[in-house]
Formats: sequence, structure tokens, C-alpha cells
Amino acid sequence: MRIGGRTNEELRPMKITPHYIKHAEGSVLIEVGDTKVICTATVEERVPPFMKGQGKGWVTAEYSMLPRATQVRNQREAAKGKLGGRTMEIQRLIGRALRSVVNLEALGERSITLDCDVIQADGGTRTTSITGAFVAMAFAINKLATDKNLAKFPINDFLASVSVGVIGETPRLDLNYEEDSQAKVDMNVVMTGQGQFVEIQGTGEDAPFSRKELDELLALAEIGIHTMIEEQSKVLGPIADRIRGVQHAATK
Amino acid sequence: MRIGGRTNEELRPMKITPHYIKHAEGSVLIEVGDTKVICTATVEERVPPFMKGQGKGWVTAEYSMLPRATQVRNQREAAKGKLGGRTMEIQRLIGRALRSVVNLEALGERSITLDCDVIQADGGTRTTSITGAFVAMAFAINKLATDKNLAKFPINDFLASVSVGVIGETPRLDLNYEEDSQAKVDMNVVMTGQGQFVEIQGTGEDAPFSRKELDELLALAEIGIHTMIEEQSKVLGPIADRIRGVQHAATK
Amino acid sequence: MRIGGRTNEELRPMKITPHYIKHAEGSVLIEVGDTKVICTATVEERVPPFMKGQGKGWVTAEYSMLPRATQVRNQREAAKGKLGGRTMEIQRLIGRALRSVVNLEALGERSITLDCDVIQADGGTRTTSITGAFVAMAFAINKLATDKNLAKFPINDFLASVSVGVIGETPRLDLNYEEDSQAKVDMNVVMTGQGQFVEIQGTGEDAPFSRKELDELLALAEIGIHTMIEEQSKVLGPIADRIRGVQHAATK
Amino acid sequence: MRIGGRTNEELRPMKITPHYIKHAEGSVLIEVGDTKVICTATVEERVPPFMKGQGKGWVTAEYSMLPRATQVRNQREAAKGKLGGRTMEIQRLIGRALRSVVNLEALGERSITLDCDVIQADGGTRTTSITGAFVAMAFAINKLATDKNLAKFPINDFLASVSVGVIGETPRLDLNYEEDSQAKVDMNVVMTGQGQFVEIQGTGEDAPFSRKELDELLALAEIGIHTMIEEQSKVLGPIADRIRGVQHAATK
Amino acid sequence: MRIGGRTNEELRPMKITPHYIKHAEGSVLIEVGDTKVICTATVEERVPPFMKGQGKGWVTAEYSMLPRATQVRNQREAAKGKLGGRTMEIQRLIGRALRSVVNLEALGERSITLDCDVIQADGGTRTTSITGAFVAMAFAINKLATDKNLAKFPINDFLASVSVGVIGETPRLDLNYEEDSQAKVDMNVVMTGQGQFVEIQGTGEDAPFSRKELDELLALAEIGIHTMIEEQSKVLGPIADRIRGVQHAATK
Amino acid sequence: MRIGGRTNEELRPMKITPHYIKHAEGSVLIEVGDTKVICTATVEERVPPFMKGQGKGWVTAEYSMLPRATQVRNQREAAKGKLGGRTMEIQRLIGRALRSVVNLEALGERSITLDCDVIQADGGTRTTSITGAFVAMAFAINKLATDKNLAKFPINDFLASVSVGVIGETPRLDLNYEEDSQAKVDMNVVMTGQGQFVEIQGTGEDAPFSRKELDELLALAEIGIHTMIEEQSKVLGPIADRIRGVQHAATK
Repeated sequence: MRIGGRTNEELRPMKITPHYIKHAEGSVLIEVGDTKVICTATVEERVPPFMKGQGKGWVTAEYSMLPRATQVRNQREAAKGKLGGRTMEIQRLIGRALRSVVNLEALGERSITLDCDVIQADGGTRTTSITGAFVAMAFAINKLATDKNLAKFPINDFLASVSVGVIGETPRLDLNYEEDSQAKVDMNVVMTGQGQFVEIQGTGEDAPFSRKELDELLALAEIGIHTMIEEQSKVLGPIADRIRGVQHAATK
Repeated sequence: MRIGGRTNEELRPMKITPHYIKHAEGSVLIEVGDTKVICTATVEERVPPFMKGQGKGWVTAEYSMLPRATQVRNQREAAKGKLGGRTMEIQRLIGRALRSVVNLEALGERSITLDCDVIQADGGTRTTSITGAFVAMAFAINKLATDKNLAKFPINDFLASVSVGVIGETPRLDLNYEEDSQAKVDMNVVMTGQGQFVEIQGTGEDAPFSRKELDELLALAEIGIHTMIEEQSKVLGPIADRIRGVQHAATK
Repeated sequence: MRIGGRTNEELRPMKITPHYIKHAEGSVLIEVGDTKVICTATVEERVPPFMKGQGKGWVTAEYSMLPRATQVRNQREAAKGKLGGRTMEIQRLIGRALRSVVNLEALGERSITLDCDVIQADGGTRTTSITGAFVAMAFAINKLATDKNLAKFPINDFLASVSVGVIGETPRLDLNYEEDSQAKVDMNVVMTGQGQFVEIQGTGEDAPFSRKELDELLALAEIGIHTMIEEQSKVLGPIADRIRGVQHAATK
Repeated sequence: MRIGGRTNEELRPMKITPHYIKHAEGSVLIEVGDTKVICTATVEERVPPFMKGQGKGWVTAEYSMLPRATQVRNQREAAKGKLGGRTMEIQRLIGRALRSVVNLEALGERSITLDCDVIQADGGTRTTSITGAFVAMAFAINKLATDKNLAKFPINDFLASVSVGVIGETPRLDLNYEEDSQAKVDMNVVMTGQGQFVEIQGTGEDAPFSRKELDELLALAEIGIHTMIEEQSKVLGPIADRIRGVQHAATK
Repeated sequence: MRIGGRTNEELRPMKITPHYIKHAEGSVLIEVGDTKVICTATVEERVPPFMKGQGKGWVTAEYSMLPRATQVRNQREAAKGKLGGRTMEIQRLIGRALRSVVNLEALGERSITLDCDVIQADGGTRTTSITGAFVAMAFAINKLATDKNLAKFPINDFLASVSVGVIGETPRLDLNYEEDSQAKVDMNVVMTGQGQFVEIQGTGEDAPFSRKELDELLALAEIGIHTMIEEQSKVLGPIADRIRGVQHAATK
Repeated sequence: MRIGGRTNEELRPMKITPHYIKHAEGSVLIEVGDTKVICTATVEERVPPFMKGQGKGWVTAEYSMLPRATQVRNQREAAKGKLGGRTMEIQRLIGRALRSVVNLEALGERSITLDCDVIQADGGTRTTSITGAFVAMAFAINKLATDKNLAKFPINDFLASVSVGVIGETPRLDLNYEEDSQAKVDMNVVMTGQGQFVEIQGTGEDAPFSRKELDELLALAEIGIHTMIEEQSKVLGPIADRIRGVQHAATK
């Protein structure tokens, strides 16, 4: 039996508190089980040098953990004087995932920076960051679309992410820290509201995995992401409708 | 009139949420007005190299702000690859202040690291960090004293901190960000439960200040710190009594 | 038509020159099309601190590009003073992939470092690095197994990697640089000689991808990796037989 | 008895050698007891980015110790690759203190950098740096005021700094290294020629201090700073008169 | 007897493979004995800030070794986060030497960067880098002179470099690694095609050396460099004629 | 005519002030013309890791310039976060040169660190550092030889260094900054009291140089170094006799 009595196809309890940080253009506190992440979206009227003069915007992300988000205290990367490989990998993933549902032309020459700061960690911090950052970004972009009267709403679709893995011989959805450390196969999946894949990162470090296992894991991920997007929709309210409007226009 | 209608001698509303982070030996979320800081205390059974073999413990602190704790996003120090001068100054101050009320011999060869992470900033982040870190430390030391059956309780006194400043010609207690940026004199004061000074840092960058102004500011700080220590006491409950017991023994 | 007239299911010409660097315990120059990587394997009789005393070995990798491996000169990471996120991501991937086919217990408390230095780049540098590093590692481990008379041969299976992607609507195997920059979906796959997955990293930054596309891409990758492992076998000669012997023993 | 037979209210012998470094616009070698600091002032016709376009100047400081300024050799911060917290704290203090007596509008869009390099240390290096840097700055600004025919002399007042502390139960002025390491309370005070405070930094790390102790320490500091400013006046000669002229105009 | 049976006045076998890297404007693989260096020349239409607006070009070099170029693996400087002193010394030497035969005015406001990457080391890596970089540079400048129709060919003379040293009491030309580590005097000489000196760096760390020894070493170096320049000429073909044309014009 | 009316074979006025820094085991202020360097020698009872357990000592050097030692202020290397190539090259040279006259076996497992800090620069800072550091080292080693009653005096010979160069067509001894910046050939020479070479570093960046010029420069250097060693002898007094005693014993 899993902690809290949930089944192999079930997410942990999930809660999104909107507008958690007063200064940010968009922000949430997202909790998935005991994993808690503060996500803020910052809008700036400039783009990085490599994007200048293209009439397009940029979306990027940074990720960090408080030193005591974990069982054992981690040294701060600021004190070490450099970002670790894991941090870089995660923040590149978050940025890439979010960009996949943003219409950068519609955004205009602006950048949106998503800061995902894990204040408590219990597995799935990168997937939780993506799910939370999407909502913070949607708040910020909605404000921007209204303030600047943008011609087209720049978000094309919903986006959420979840981890799946094989514990023993059993595929499970949304691993907590303890499950994650026992998993022989570990996979992070990012999907859109239309059910398409944005990222699949599966690793069988302890043991390679078969095609059948892959199929089962992807099916579980789809279930979890569907539930997460429903939760995002509720929190976003009328902004969710604007996103659905863009989807509708695109698929016509 | 000040924001929220408070007088010049009045603190902003203050709230301490204990046990905010499940992994830490002690932790709080402290809110003073719109300034919010997560303080965690980590106990480790080792001391830094320069303290080895002395039979004494060590207390140290680290301080950071989330990038969007402020009006305008700040670049992460981890991304810059080094700690700024302001951060170093503040974390040295927090560590020094906390050590002043800890009996390092009674602690034994252990170290306590206080992590103060500002999640939202509105003035007074260093003083709020000290006030919160004291409570997180007290929880952690109390647990330690119980678990390890320490002969003597290692905390000698309460400790809190507040900022004061002169706006125009008027001394005020507990400046928020807006007041702080207008102040011609700015002072941070750290005091013990017995009403003694641990640190006084006063700066008249925009204009030097007189002896009379200094006296008025110190009087205001004393009022604020007294109130803060009452609040710490309530949250600590029976642990506050243990601290008072040590004070009582010391002054006999 | 693709450059060189190859079909969508065809690899570029591939060549592995063994024993390319005289000082290393194992080394190759691997060429896949115009992508050229020097892979060396270094055996050291020690393990990193976190592995000490477990009686197990460790396999790790480092990756770099010469500044002029690319069309436009890249600044050296040594001159910048830090490794970029892309480099870290790639070297973590290579290390993880190689460990999946090494029996760390059989290796004993030793470490093997694979250095993959791209001297000329034309797409697929990370996958080419994995395919080449496996051969360099096999030479080094074979020498070690002979010199130290290891009880069990520490490599469980072959390992190779290839990139696949969707250009326009068409899935293709082994993208060169030009194809890679046009791909809407990009996927790197690492597989074993037994046809199991070790890593799948698929990204649809420009457009999300469907389940059908995923299936087609995985099928292409399987074809390419099968060919690569045949090539590795030829270069390894009798060492390939030792690996097959371990496979055989494991599946009995 | 104190070293050299001085009383508790007495400074160590003090000597300021003007124009010590031929290339700098202003420079001194300042000796207070065995503490020796080379202070140079550099004038540059530009301001840091955050000050651009405001029509105002900037004053900043850097501080360092030669490795063998101290009893035991210190590693160079250049070799460590970063500035320590103590260095940053001190150079921020020196810059802030000097700015308090400079009329940045009258200076025009220029910057003055004070380099304080301790060649021999025996306590009070930061306070000696401030006292010496003021003189170096006055030489440089006087030259600038003459060369550029500035409408208004940009220095408002004299500035000097001294340390005070409590050894045992006794407050003392101008601690040398040995006294400093025994002090239970340690305070650095920066004051103007008009007798106002610019900075007060008092620390009771080993024991908190009372209001009475604070009052006694401030009185001692005032005595020491008065003597120091007399010495600065002698060295500056006619430049001292220009500063007094500005004071006179301001207080009328 | 020396390895390979060569005499004290003989170079090791030398081979220059032109156009080794397809992306670079000029490139070679140079082999001197078992020392192998990839040299690429990159032309950029800009100069470093300190050269701007002078109508002159710049030539600079970077040097690195692959980790396993040596008997024992070296940690990457990119991983250490900084360049070592030896690397900096060598790359300054290479740049300085090459600039001595380039007419920077004739080059125009462009920069040429020579990257010298040692893939296998067996003594003389810095001298081999200079000899190889000259050829890579000549290819790149020749292409530039043709493409941009430069009025004057910007290379004044040939340039090559060799090491010499005293082993026991015997001076020898072109030391390999084993000889180098036994040498009591070690000297690197850079000379032009006209037989003039560009750099002499002689070190007697283990024992000082006499004037007579110096004379013998310089004579050996001259022999070796003469041979090297003949080899460069063969590889450069008609470009060598253009260089000789400039020499001829200069000496008339 | 040269500044100060000196001839081409003449050194600038030279002055060595012994025991300049009270904390160091040996120290001098050396002035050669307007170039002024503080040299301190630190003795530590340990050697760097690579020298451990060999029963031998080590001598090393560090070099730095105060920011305003030069006409235009230089940024501190500590502020930049890394040592520049020029600094590394110079400190490697100083250490290597000093080691050439030290008997490391006689020194025992100890290290001597020479810190050469240029407080005012006017050409020849590296050669002046070597000449001054030799004296500081001799004081420190003499103290050590006495305190530890060393069996053999660990200095074999005197050591000094000077720069020479060709200005126009004229070779000159001991270039000041202005001459140095006009020199077409620039050479630093380090020699022993016995007149042997320890280092020759000659560079013809602006124009290659002939064998005849080399011979003339070496002759000038010999003259200058002879004078410098006489000056060192006077300052060292009886310690100079001890060094001469070692020379005498060695040449018998």
C-alpha cells in the first residue's frame, strides 16, 4: 500500500494558492503532497541579447531549493559559487516546457521569467514546478494581455507535468521521495491540455526498461496530467476560458 | 499618517507560524507587516574546522532573498556565482547576534545553522530574520536538549531585533520599505530579553545625526523589541520557561 | 533527399578508430558523418567520496567541444570559468547511460572516467559520444579484467545511442546539424544490445508531438542502434564475445 | 597599564605622510600606532551605471590587507577568487562614511575611488582607513576643484573614525590588536568635524552591553576623533580652510 | 642513445596534416614525435575593446590539453573553474610569437584566434603549438587576403619554435617528455624564417647555466627551426611563396 | 639622454630598507628608481601536498600590484575573482628563480612564501621583486637557521635580476616604464652571484632581434646584476658572509 492509501493511478493531494507573493506579476504556492514550491512570474520589457530585434518574446525559468527543503541540509549554490548540473538541467527543462505553449510572436519583445523555489521537497519537485509555473505564468500573461491590450492571447494550451516510475514490477503515478529512491525506472512527462507530449525523459539507470513498461508509464502520466489541468483550470477561472478560446481557434 | 494608521512607536502586525518546514529540527514562518521570512534551524553533529576540539558548539546563519521577494526582480546570487556584500554583512550579523545568547559550551561540539530565506520583502528583512531565527533555533535546541539530555539548557536569554529611523525630523519604529527609502538615519538594534544591547548599527549616509536623535531611536527600539519578545514567548510556550529559568539562575 | 542520398531510416557513415590516444587505458576516435569525437577511458584505483567503502566502482563522464568544432567559434568553458548547462546535462547523461550496463560490484572500488571531446561537430554529438565511449570503456575494462584477473567481466551488455527527429511531418534517423535545427521534435534514445531502453529524451519545443509520432521515432532509433552495435562488435572483436558471454549467462 | 603608557582616553601616536604614491590624485600613508595603511584617491570622469545621467558624482572604496600585514600570513583574496565577508563589510562602510561628507552634486558626474591597503595591521584597520582616506580624498578633490574650476567645493565637513571597547569593565579608546581580541564590547564610531555621528557599529558578541557602557564609549570616541581631525587639518593646510569655509556657509 | 636512434641535433619525425577541421578558416593537425596538436585559426570581423578604432588587427591564442593527453589524467580547467598559470603563460607566449610576424595594419580591424588543443602530449607541446598555429594562421590569412582582396599580404615571415635542453652535460634538440623531465636546463626558442629571435625562454631551475651552454643551445635551436620551416613551406605551397614575396620586398 | 642623466650601462638609484614589516620573518622595502616593492618572507612548518614526505622544503612566491601603483588605476584581481595571466607568469618566475639558489634539502620540510607587493610601479617590477625577495628570504632563512640550528645554511648563492632592452637601435640597462613601452626588444635576466644564468626571457614582439643584440643585452644585464648583488651584500651584512661561505665550500 502507498502512503495515504492511494492507488497506483492516483495523484497525491494537490493545492494551488494563487497570488502568493504580492510583488510578482503572477505567483502561486503549489503543494503536491508534501512537496511545496513557490512559483513567481516576472514580466520584463526586454529580451535576452540573442532574441533582440526579432519581434518575439522569451520565456525562461530558474529553479532552486531552500537549503532545508530536504531531509539533510544542502549547501546553497550561491555559497558554492556555481549552479550544479541538476539545477541547470531542471531549469532548462522548465523553460523549454513552458515555451512550448506560448506564442512568442503574440507576446511581443518581452521576457517572462519563472522562478520556482522549492521550500519543501518530497519527490517530483521539477514536475510540480512546471505545473505551478504554468499557472503563475498564465496570471502574468493575462495581466499583460489586458494592460497592453495584446491583439492575440499568447498562451496556446494548458501544460502540466508529473513523474511516473516502476517500483519493483509495478508502474506508479506521482512518486514521492521514498518511492522515487526505490524506482528502477523513473520518467518525467510534460503534456498539453490537448493530450500531446512536450517532453518525455525516461531513465533506467538501475535497469533498462521494455517497450511494454514504457507504454504503461505513459498511460499513467496521461491520467495524472489530466487531473492536474482540471485543478489549474479551477484556479485560473476566466483565464482558463481565454486559453480554451485560443485552442478552439487553433483546431478549427 | 503611517500605513495602517499605526503610530510612530508601533510595530507592524507580527505573526510567527511554528514548525513551518517538516524536515528541519526547528522552523518558523515569520511575518512582520508584508515582510515574510522562512527561518529553519539545522543541527549537525560537527563544528567548523576552526572550532574543532574545543568542546564547544557553533551557531551560524545564512540569508537569502527569493528573486521576486522585491518590487523588481533581483538576479540570484547563485547565478552570479558569488554572494554580494549586503548578503555577507547580513548573515554575519545574524550569526553574531544569535551566538550572543547561546552558551556554546553547554551546546557541545555541534553546530546550528540558521537559514533565513526572505520570500517577500517590505523593509526590515534582517531584523525580522533575527527575530524569527531565534524562535527556530529555540525549537531546535530544545529538541536537542531533550534528545541528548543536555546537562544545561544552552540558551541564556531571549533575542529580537527591530529597525528604527528618522523620517524628516521624526523618529519612527519598524520602518517598512517605503519609509526606509526616505529615512535620513537608519538604525538596526538587537537586544536581549534583559534589555541589554547586542548590536547597534546606525548609519547617517544622507545626513549625520545628533546624540539626541540617537537617544530617541534607542528608546523606540527598546519598545519594539519588548513587544517582539512577548510574541516569541507565546509561540515558544514551555520552552520560554526553560529560557527564563536559565536567566533566573544567571542573575541570582 | 537527405545529404549523401541516404534514406530516412539510414545512419550516416560511421567509423571507429581504436587505440587513438596512446596514454589512455582505452580510447577511440569515433566519426558519424562529419561529427568526430575522441573518447578516452581512464581507470583510477579510487572512487568518489560518496561511493567509498561500498565495495563498488563508479563510472562517470566529461564532455567538451573544441572551440572551433562548430561553424562559429565557441568560447571555452575554461575561459568563462564555468561549465554551461548544456555541457552538464550531456555529461550527466553519458555517465548515467554507461553505468546502466556496468556491473559496479564486479568492477570493484575503482572509477572509470570517460572523456568525450568533440573535435568536429555536425549534429548528434551526445549520442555519438555515448556510442564511442562505450567502446573506449570496453577496451579499458577488458584490460583491467585481464590485469587484475577479475572474477566476473563487469560489462553486462552493449550500449549505443542515436538521435531521431521529425522534420516537417517526416520522422528521420540520425539527424545532422542542419536537420536538427529544422526538427520540430527531437529525441535522443539510448538502448542496450538486448533492445531495451536506457534513456529516452524527447522534446517538442517547437510543437508538441503525438503518440503516433513517438512510436515511429522509437522504431527508427531501434534500427540505428542495432547497426551501431554491430559496428562496435567488429571493433571490439574478442571483447565483444566476453560481453555476449555475460549476456548469455544473465538470460539463462 | 596600556602599551606605551597611554591612558584609557588616549590615542596611539598618529602620523599622516601626504603624497605617498606619485601616480594617485591624492594619497597618504597613515600610521596609528603600528597600524599602517596606504590610502590613494583616484578620480575618474565617469560614474557607475546606476548613477548615470543624474548629474551627480559617486565615492566608493576598496579595502585589502597585504598577506603578511598580520601575525600569521593570510591567503590573498585574489588567490581564493573572492572577497570575504569582512572585506566587503569594511569597504561598504568606508565608502558610505566618506559619501556622508561629500556634496555629490557639487562633484559633478565623476567618481572617486579610495583604495585602502593595510601594509601592517595592529588593530583599528578600518577606522584608520577612514581617517586616512578622508585626507587622500581631500587632496584629490582639491586638485579637481582647482583643475575643473568647480563652482562649489564638494566637501562639507571633516570626517574621522576610531574604535572603542570595553576590556574587563573598563572602556578604552583606540584598541590595538591585543586589546581588541580581549574586548567584550567593540565599537567603531565615525564622526564629522561638527561632532555628529555618521556611523555607530557596536557589537557585544561575547556579552551584551548596557546603556551606561554605550554612553561611556561614545564619549571616548568623541575625544579621539576630535584629536584626529586636528591632525588631518595640519596635514591639509589651506585645504582645511576650504572645508571650514563650506561648513561656515552651511551653518549660517 | 636517444629514442628512435636520433642524434642530439635531430628533430623527431614531424607531420602536418592541413585542413583537419572543416569549419575553421585554417587548421592543421601537427605531430612532432608523439606530441599531437590540433591548431585552428578563426577569423572574426572585430577586435578586442583595447584595439578598437586603430585600424589594426589582432592575433591571439588559446591553449589547452585534453584530460588524457598525458600519462596521468589531468582535471579539466573548465571543471576547476579557472585557467592555471602554465596555460596562461603558454597562450600568452603563442599569441605574442605569432603577432611578431603579422603586419597588423595590413590585416585591418579583424582578429585571428588560434586554438591549440593538445590531444596527445610527449614534450614540446608549446613549441609544437607555435609551429602548427603558424600554418593554420597562414591558411586563414591567405583565404582572407583573397576574399577581401587585401592590398598587402599580412604575413612578414615564417615562424617556428623548438625546445632545447641540457641532459647531464649534453645539449640536445627537441626534448621528448622523458628527456624534458631530466633536463637541468630547459629552453624554448622561437625564430623567424630570416633566422632572427622572437622569444628566448631559458630556465635553470635545477642548476644555473653558463654562457657557453647558452651558446650551444641556441645553435641547436637554429638547426631545428630551419628544418621545421622547410616542412611548413611544403605544406603551404603557393602561400609560402607569398610570404617569401613579402620578405623579399622588405629586405630590398 | 636618459632621465636623471644616467648612461645606458647604469642602474637607477637603488635602496633596500630592511625589516620593513614587523610581523614577517624577513622583509624589505626595495626601491629601484620610482619602482617600490614590499617583499615579505613567511616561514611555515609545512610543505604543499605534492612535496610531502620528501624531507625537502619549498619556496614559492606571490606578486600583486596595489590598484594605484600605476598611472591609471587597475582593477583588483580579488574583485575580478581571478588572477590574470601576467600575475601568474610573474609569480611563477619569482618562485622558480629563488628556488634555484636554495638548498631545499638543507631547508627541511618547511615552506617559505615570498609576497611581493608593488606599491608604486615605474618599470621593472618583476626584476625588482626578485632582487628584493632574495634579501627578505635571506633574513628569514638566517633566522630559521639560527632558531632551528640547521646543519647546513640553505642558501647557495646570491641572486638578482634586472631588465634590459633595445630602444631604437641602442641597448639599455634597467628600463623605466617610459623606456619599456618604447623598447622593440625586452629582456629579463636573472643571475647568481657566481655570474651564471638562472632565467633569460627575451621577447621581440615588435621586431625580432639578432644574435649580436642578444649578446649586447646579456653583457649589460651582467653589469647591473653585479651592482645589485653588492647592494644586497651591504644590507645583509654578516648573512652575506654565511652565503659566501656556502659558495666557497661548493667551489672547493
